[in-house]
Order: sequence, then C-alpha cells, then structure tokens
Amino acid sequence: MNILQRIETNEDLRAVDPEEIPQLCREIRSFLIEKVSRTGGHLASNLGAVELTVALHRVYDPYRDRILFDVGHQSYVHKLLTGRRDRFDTLRQLNGISGFPMPEESEADPFLAGHASDAVSVAAGMARARTLLKGDYDVVAVVGDGAMTGGLCYEGLCDIGASREPVVVVLNDNGMSINENVGGVAKMLSRARTRPGYFRFKKAYRRFLKHMPWLYLFLHRVKENLKKTLIPQGIFDDMGFEYIGPIDGHDESAVEAALRWGKALRVPALIHVVTQKGRGYLPAEQYPEQYHGVNAFEPDTGLQDDFCEDFSACFGETMIRLAKSDPKLCAVTAAMERGTGLDCFARRFPKQFVELGIAEGHAVAMCAGMAKQGITPVFAVYSSFLQRSFDMLMEDVGLMKEHVVLAVDRAGLVGRDGVTHQGSFDIAYLSAVPHMTILAPSSFAELSSMLEKAVYQLSGPVAVRYPRGSEGGFKDDTSDKNTVTLRSGKDVTIVCHGITVNQALEAAECLGTEGISARVIKVNRVLPLDADEILDSLRETGRLVSVEDACRAMSVGSRLLELCAGQGIVLKGVCQLDLGDGVVYHGTVEQLCSQLGLDASGVAASVKELVHEKDPA
Amino acid sequence: MNILQRIETNEDLRAVDPEEIPQLCREIRSFLIEKVSRTGGHLASNLGAVELTVALHRVYDPYRDRILFDVGHQSYVHKLLTGRRDRFDTLRQLNGISGFPMPEESEADPFLAGHASDAVSVAAGMARARTLLKGDYDVVAVVGDGAMTGGLCYEGLCDIGASREPVVVVLNDNGMSINENVGGVAKMLSRARTRPGYFRFKKAYRRFLKHMPWLYLFLHRVKENLKKTLIPQGIFDDMGFEYIGPIDGHDESAVEAALRWGKALRVPALIHVVTQKGRGYLPAEQYPEQYHGVNAFEPDTGLQDDFCEDFSACFGETMIRLAKSDPKLCAVTAAMERGTGLDCFARRFPKQFVELGIAEGHAVAMCAGMAKQGITPVFAVYSSFLQRSFDMLMEDVGLMKEHVVLAVDRAGLVGRDGVTHQGSFDIAYLSAVPHMTILAPSSFAELSSMLEKAVYQLSGPVAVRYPRGSEGGFKDDTSDKNTVTLRSGKDVTIVCHGITVNQALEAAECLGTEGISARVIKVNRVLPLDADEILDSLRETGRLVSVEDACRAMSVGSRLLELCAGQGIVLKGVCQLDLGDGVVYHGTVEQLCSQLGLDASGVAASVKELVHEKDPA
Repeated sequence: MNILQRIETNEDLRAVDPEEIPQLCREIRSFLIEKVSRTGGHLASNLGAVELTVALHRVYDPYRDRILFDVGHQSYVHKLLTGRRDRFDTLRQLNGISGFPMPEESEADPFLAGHASDAVSVAAGMARARTLLKGDYDVVAVVGDGAMTGGLCYEGLCDIGASREPVVVVLNDNGMSINENVGGVAKMLSRARTRPGYFRFKKAYRRFLKHMPWLYLFLHRVKENLKKTLIPQGIFDDMGFEYIGPIDGHDESAVEAALRWGKALRVPALIHVVTQKGRGYLPAEQYPEQYHGVNAFEPDTGLQDDFCEDFSACFGETMIRLAKSDPKLCAVTAAMERGTGLDCFARRFPKQFVELGIAEGHAVAMCAGMAKQGITPVFAVYSSFLQRSFDMLMEDVGLMKEHVVLAVDRAGLVGRDGVTHQGSFDIAYLSAVPHMTILAPSSFAELSSMLEKAVYQLSGPVAVRYPRGSEGGFKDDTSDKNTVTLRSGKDVTIVCHGITVNQALEAAECLGTEGISARVIKVNRVLPLDADEILDSLRETGRLVSVEDACRAMSVGSRLLELCAGQGIVLKGVCQLDLGDGVVYHGTVEQLCSQLGLDASGVAASVKELVHEKDPA
Repeated sequence: MNILQRIETNEDLRAVDPEEIPQLCREIRSFLIEKVSRTGGHLASNLGAVELTVALHRVYDPYRDRILFDVGHQSYVHKLLTGRRDRFDTLRQLNGISGFPMPEESEADPFLAGHASDAVSVAAGMARARTLLKGDYDVVAVVGDGAMTGGLCYEGLCDIGASREPVVVVLNDNGMSINENVGGVAKMLSRARTRPGYFRFKKAYRRFLKHMPWLYLFLHRVKENLKKTLIPQGIFDDMGFEYIGPIDGHDESAVEAALRWGKALRVPALIHVVTQKGRGYLPAEQYPEQYHGVNAFEPDTGLQDDFCEDFSACFGETMIRLAKSDPKLCAVTAAMERGTGLDCFARRFPKQFVELGIAEGHAVAMCAGMAKQGITPVFAVYSSFLQRSFDMLMEDVGLMKEHVVLAVDRAGLVGRDGVTHQGSFDIAYLSAVPHMTILAPSSFAELSSMLEKAVYQLSGPVAVRYPRGSEGGFKDDTSDKNTVTLRSGKDVTIVCHGITVNQALEAAECLGTEGISARVIKVNRVLPLDADEILDSLRETGRLVSVEDACRAMSVGSRLLELCAGQGIVLKGVCQLDLGDGVVYHGTVEQLCSQLGLDASGVAASVKELVHEKDPA
C-alpha cells in the first residue's frame, strides 16, 4: 500500500506519476477486497470502477466539481480517495460510513444516491443552476448500463441533450444489461470518433469560427446533413450528445484522456467506458452476480458466509409450486431475478418469467395489461423500488381493479443498505391505491399460503409484503384469518403484523413473568383492516401498543386510533412503535430495532411504562 | 351526415367505398365541432386523428383487437365509430360518456387512459398475454409525439422491441414536441422503407426461409451488419422496431396501407403518422393549443366562453411578481406551460423558465439538483400527474431535504376530465414524503402569500395545493396562521381547508339560522398539522365534521381522530366529508360536490344529523 498511503488529498492523487497508476489501482483493489470481506458490501461493481474513479479524480476536483454516481453502490473508490480511507472498517455499520454517497459524510458526495437512473436528472438540475448562477464547476454523472434501461435516465438524457448544458455522462458499461443494438451502433461510432485528432480538430474549428456565427451555422448544417446521410447515428446522437467511446475502462490513461476531451467540449458529452464487474478478483470476475452485494467472506477463497433460507427463497419456491399447475401465472421482475428469489423459477418456467431491467413503472403497467387479458402477473419487487411505480399502481392497476399481485420484498427494515433502501413506506403509499389489499405474512408458511390466496382467492390489486432475511420463532400459519389473537391478556393490547410478531410475543412472554397480562393480536390483512377483534380488545384493556416495521403514516396503529375516536372507544394509554417518518439510516436490523424500541425489550419497556402510568384525567 | 349515419357497426365502416372516405371524414369533423362546441372537451387532437382512427377501424376490429389510445383525449372518433354516436350530447357530463377511454362504457375501450405514456406498456402486457394464452387478436398502441418524451414510453418501447412480440405502435406525430433529430433520421429512413415492394419482398423472404432457420439466421446477420454499416439507424430501430413512415396522416388510404403492412409483419412495428392538430377547423388549426381542451364555444366563429380569473392565473402572476426581484427563482413545468398559468412568465423570464415535456419524474429530480446548487425551483404540476414523481419526491427531494416548491394545481375535484384527472390523492402521497410541508390556500390572496412564504420563509420540500377554477366567496388572506378559526360556535367543529372553506362557511351561516352554533376552523398548513386550536375546540363541542376535497387516507379529519384517541379526547359525533377512496368520475365540480355531500347543504345536513343524534353509550 505504498502509493495509496501517500494519498491524503486530491492534489496527492494528481501528483502520482502515470506509470505508478496501475500499481495504485492494484493497491486499491487489495484494500477493497480486504475491507469488504470483513464488512460485506458491494464488491464486484467497485472492483470494476477502480480505474474509472481514479481517472475521474485526476480530471475533476471532487470537492468543487459535482461527480454523481448513479445508484451509488460503486462509490467506494470515490470514498476511499476523498478522506474516508480510515473509516472503511465502519462501512455500512451503525454510525459508520454509508455504502452509498451521502452528503452528510463529505463535501465530495454531492447528492444522495440509492435508486437507479436519477443521477442524469440531478446533473441536469445542477448544470442549469451553475449556468444561471454563473458557477465555475463541472457536472459529471456516472451511470451503469443497467440504469440506462430506466425511463428516468432517458428523460434526463433527452433534457440535457436539448438544453445544450455542458454535462459529461459517463456510461459505465459492464455489459450486464445494455441493449445489443445500442452497443453495436455505439461501437462503430467509436471507430470514427475516438481518434484524438478528431477532437483536437473540432476544438480548433470551434475556436476559429466562434466569431463568425453565420459561417459556423452554415457549416454546422452542412456537416449535420452529411453526418445524417453518411454516418449511422446512435441513440445518444439523436438525443444531442457528443458520443465518445467505447473506451477500455481498465486503461486509466485512456479513460483520463476521454474525460479531458469530454470536459473540454462544453456541450453534452457521453463517454462510453467498458468495464468488467469484479475485475481483479477471480471469484468475482467469474460470478459477478454473486459478488454484487456480499456478506462477509473469506478473501483468499471467496467463500461467503452460509446462506440461510429467507423469505425471498420461500417466495421463489412457492411460485414454482403454483406455476406447476398454472400456465396463466407469470412472474415479473425489474432487474431483480436473483434478489427476489426467482432464479430457479426463471430456469424452470422461462415462458412464464418476464425480466424487464430497471423499469418498475413499466413493469406495473405491463402487468396491468397482462391481467386485463387473462394472465395473473406476480411482480416481485423491493418495497423501496416499488415507489417508482406509484402512478401506474394508481391508474393502471387501482382504478382498473386489475388482479395484479405485488410480491413486496424487503418490506420494513433492510439493515446495512440504509436510508434509500429501507422498506418503510409501502403500507403508506399502497394504502392510497384504490381497491388495494395488503397482506403481511409473519412466517414462511404464511408467505406461501398468503401468496396462494392472493393469486387464487382475491381479486383486484393485492400486495404481499415480507421482510429481508429469515423468519423468527413464529412459524405458524394463521393465514385463514384477517386478524388473529395469538395470546390473551387483559392489561394491554399489543397489535403487530409481519415479522414484528416475534418481538411482540417475546415481549408479552417476558411481561407475563412480571405480572403484566398482554394480549397479542396479529394483523394478517393490513388493508382493508379487519379491526373488530382489536377494537373489542381495546374496549377491554384500554391500552394500545402497536409494533410495526413501517412508517407512521397510514400505519395500523394510526388507523386503529382513528377508529377508536370515531367509535367512542376511550383509551387510557397509547404507544405507537414504528419507523416514525420512515427515515432510518444503516446498521444491522437488530441494532436498528433496538434503537427504535422495536425489539422485544423495547416493546416490553413501552408496555410497562404505559401500564404503570396513571390514567389520564 | 349521409355516410356517417349509415355506420352502425364495424362492418358498415369497412363497407364504405374508399372514394367516400374523405366525405365521411368531413362529416365526422362537422359532427365533432357541433357536439364539442356544446359540451366542451378535447377538440384539436380529435380533429387531427380523424383519418387515422377511421383507418384503424377499417384495418382492426375494435371489439376483438385491442386499440389503446395513449392519454385517450384523442379517442372521440373511436367512440363515435363504436356505438356511442347517440350519446355525444352527454360527453363529459354527469353519468354521460367519458372524454377518455373507459372499459365500463364499451368493449371497444380496452383500457382506461388519462395519464400519458402508459399505452405502450399496457400493450406489451396484452401482447404477452395473447401469446401465452394463444389468443387471436392484434394489439395496437396509438401514442402522441408528446407522450414519447415520457420515460415510461421509452421503457415500454425497449421491452416490446426486445420481446419481439408483434405489436404495432402508431406514433401520431402532430409536431408539437418531438425532438427534431429523431424526426430527421426518421424521415430519411422512411424513404428507403415505405415502398410496398420492400415489405412484400420481406414477407415472401421470411416465408421462404421459415423452414431453414440456419440460413435465415446467417442471412439475417449479414443483412443486419450491412444495414448498420450502410443505412443510418434511428432510435426506433435501435429499440428493435420496424419503422414505417412518415405517412401523411390525413391521407386515409395511405394510413390504412401502412397499418396493413405493420399488421402483416408480425414483429414490433412503429408507424410514424404525421397529423395536424385541429385539422379542418380553421380556428383550431391556427391556435391548436387554445383548442386542446375547450369549454363550450360558438362553432361558426370559434369564440370560447369568457375566461375568468382562476388559481392558475393567480399562480402565474405571483411567480412574475417574485421573479422580478429574484434571479434565483425558476419555474419548471412538464408540458403544462399554458395549463399551469406560466405562459406570461415564460415570455418574461425565459432563462428562469424550464419546460421539460411530459417527464414529471425527471422534473422533480432535476429540481432537486437545482435546489442543491442554490436555485429555488417551483415545479408547477397537476395533482394527479405529480403521482408519477413519487419516488423522486421521496428520494431526491424528501430524504435530501431539498427546498423544492411544488405548485400543485388541479388539487381536489377537477370536474369533467373525470377519474384519471381528479386531484384526490396529493395529500395522501405527499404526507409520506419526509420533511414535507403542505399549504392549502383558499383564495387568490392566500395563494399569492403562501407561495411567497413557501419560496422565502420555509425550507425543505413545500407543496402548495390549489384547485382548478376560481375562488369563492372567501377572499381573505389568513396565511400568517397555520390554523385559523373563522367563526366561533359551541355545538360542532367544522374543519376545512382550501376551497372547501366556502361550503363550510355557508353551511355554518345556514345552520346558525336554525339555532345550531358551528365553529369553523380552517387549516392553512395541512402538514405538519397544527392541531392545538382544533383539539381545544373539539374538547368543547365534542363533534367533528371535516370537509375536504381529498381522499380519506391521511386526510386532516383522519389525523385529527388519531390525535383525539391518543390524547383521550372523547367525541360524541364524527362525520368525515371527503372524496372517500378518491375514485370520482366526471361531472361538473358542483354536481360532484353535491353527490358527495360536500356542498353547503350537504355539510349542513351532516351537521344537523350529528347534532340531533343521541350521544353514544
């Protein structure tokens, strides 16, 4: 680590001799493998972006210029080179550095990232602000080929192209998903354009003609017409970008040169950089998908911690079971085949599996079209990413009452991926969707039977929400009831759903030993809420404690309070334990639960406080 | 109307002699002008789509095939030709036919439409369902050039192109917004491709090689490489579409021929049809924007009913007032410059005005980027269309606490545009956005001062929601308070916000004459709710009536009930008057208010019922 250790500031990095850069990149890779093997995190994408990030930091000033990493899981090298080297042991740990860009952490992180395809839009806004306020800085967006499938990215590119704002978009193409045709055209264009002479000529030509706008305009039109007639135009040209590439993304000097050209052009420029996911670490090169997001692993062999059965796997198995006898069932994903547990399903039922790339909005509208014509689509999607489909859920599914099943994975706390990935909001925004049903399984058995119920017994839009990770002590199947009393008691009513049933039951158990009798009621159908049993209990106990892995807005607790007030049920005490405004940073799920008072001891403590409180006057 | 009157079924239309088609189209135009001049509605876009729609109905069977009109405001001719001619006097009237496709109305309307750019996605789903279930029908999506700016449309096109599903996408290009470059490339391609011989050859060639897949594949590759080298590729080719066009959209036989080719190809095909908005009606040809959506007008002269001052105009004037002394203020719209009242602003402050096309998601993320770098963006957008920005509101604005101002126009009931356009949900979904403030002006004076407050006094995301149309009797400015008591009373607390203050005050006035003393409290800041004054009142009156032009979820009434239950405030009676689940069909705002019990007499009746009820046991 001789060279890496020398780098404390951006000036230090710029001062590194070009001959030493390959060695520096090797050191950075070793550093990443060592650190991520202990903390877990996004490995393969960062290994692929080492030379690209070094080049970006040698061409741009990360503190003055605005380098936007789209999605942001590939920003580790950027963090390493902007003063956070010593904090890498805390990566994704509670109170440690985030696995994504985070403005609170450093001036070098210009914007929050986590959801795909927004960096180009944010860049467009920053570039406009710069021009209006006469700022002196550059704006660069680094976008993966996967994010290019998102419509938001298309909207952003069209806008920048039309605006003529000087913005450099770096397409970090690791060949995972980009459309072959785009790649094909792009490759050919690069042959004509990446010669340094072309760009040198272009700059000189522009300088020369700057004071003769009429001549420039005339020649420009001639040239454009010639180009349109003679040179095939790619999608980026159509959008108004100067296309540069493709560049070998592991040749740092080539990337640096392309960035300098793009920067000098002062028009929208797209630099196409071809990289390899997992570059420089054999296990990750061979299985980039497995090393996309990893738990801690053994760096020498690449062996990851044992994978335990989780809700996603249970979902995938259930889908296989149902599809065996149902040719009308389709599984749909948006670039999350593996994450949602559908990889086996995809192999066994390829005709009934639809993978759409990062295009959640399209996925939902597409499902609505399928449903209208007789298919039962099950869209498997992470809670936080489904936010992007909100309008399509409202218009195409909700108003149309289409029978579209949403398998809402990563609902509730997701842990280390942090604030952009927590599934805090699904109950809130799905509750606004007309005709929506929301089911909340607490165990694998319940996920399996509730999914079956969603597909075969219910109509209209149905969401089944389940958490990241494994089930807890509660392994029963109570899915035949909308609301179920798991434990009787007279002092307090604890209401829970989904995975929080485990903490509620454990708390009740513990309270029992202290002489407090807590009734535990589990809500299986969160929407529409079937509250009679709960309201009866509240009339008796007079105390409500709700335990939910969801934000407060539209939570079960809040709706129960609304019902109590409407029905004249007077409560002596209320405590809502939930995710509050939904903004929860990174840490393990256990740590976060503990912080939020959502673990068993937190629940028990809240109950005790409530029971020992004097009745309000 | 000789020919038009003969047409009762699709067979009748197909039987019309080609020579009679121009006369038929003239009759249709006369019919539309006559009817829409009385009912109001979307005129210019329908006049432009006459030949196109006739051609679609002669090539496809609207009852068996699925013809999806994107947005759907151009579907009048389709409705006219599918059994609804006699109902055109009820267009957009209460219980009459909708101005948009509506499956409840006719089997010929395959899907609801209203929000732009989703038809291609829905078509993708329908085509997949057809293939999986071996259905025998065609799927066609008719998309305007404006909707092509939406990222959802791009996602849909990419998917169809990659899926190879036979879907015909008709690009109805009336030159209002499409990117010049796309048009340029497209035009040139058309010269090479629209010759009938080309397609006949292509079909024969495919048939011939069908049984020799290896030869087909080999020749296909040779051809593709040749094409890439020799023929410029447009964006649609890159996406995997056969491009046909441009076609003169007012030459019915040419459109019909192109549709037959597209249908026969059995691959994704894009037919580029060039039409003129307002075609055949001089006033609309000259001012297509003014005849996009019209009120009733005088058919001979085109004179529309007098335009009265509305909230949108007041918004535009306020923006001009603020921008005069603030170079950091920017107005942003998504294809709604005129609708949101920003046309004068755009002319006076062109550098501070950003129009982005139908791209609400991008608009919000772009605003976030602007805000981060020191600009104050004000995004003017219709309540219902802002739904498409939900994820960007959450991630780019909410979590980042960016100071982005949302001017939420058309909040609450919009009237005749109906179910897809009602602004029922903004309070519900904006309440989930972290750090959000929602203000609700009731008068022009309040809109003006609340907008100023949003720009200069508040931080983080701020939404100012205001209705379509004009102010009512309430013209005061109480914006210095979060919550304000407008009228004192002891029997009941009526809580209202925004435009519903008028009904609440009128009801209270009327109730006073009957000896019921109603307190009227107006909420200016809907979020965060400043409820102390209201809760004090409820402790006194014990009765709550909330009057809101918003859906029930996250309504002020619901949150007040939640607070009452949490604070032990016992209510004798509760009545929430609002938009329920938010699904409200078309009619005038007055009619809809009356139906929902939201007019003054409805509010008064609910109060009386509540006051005369016995106290609950």
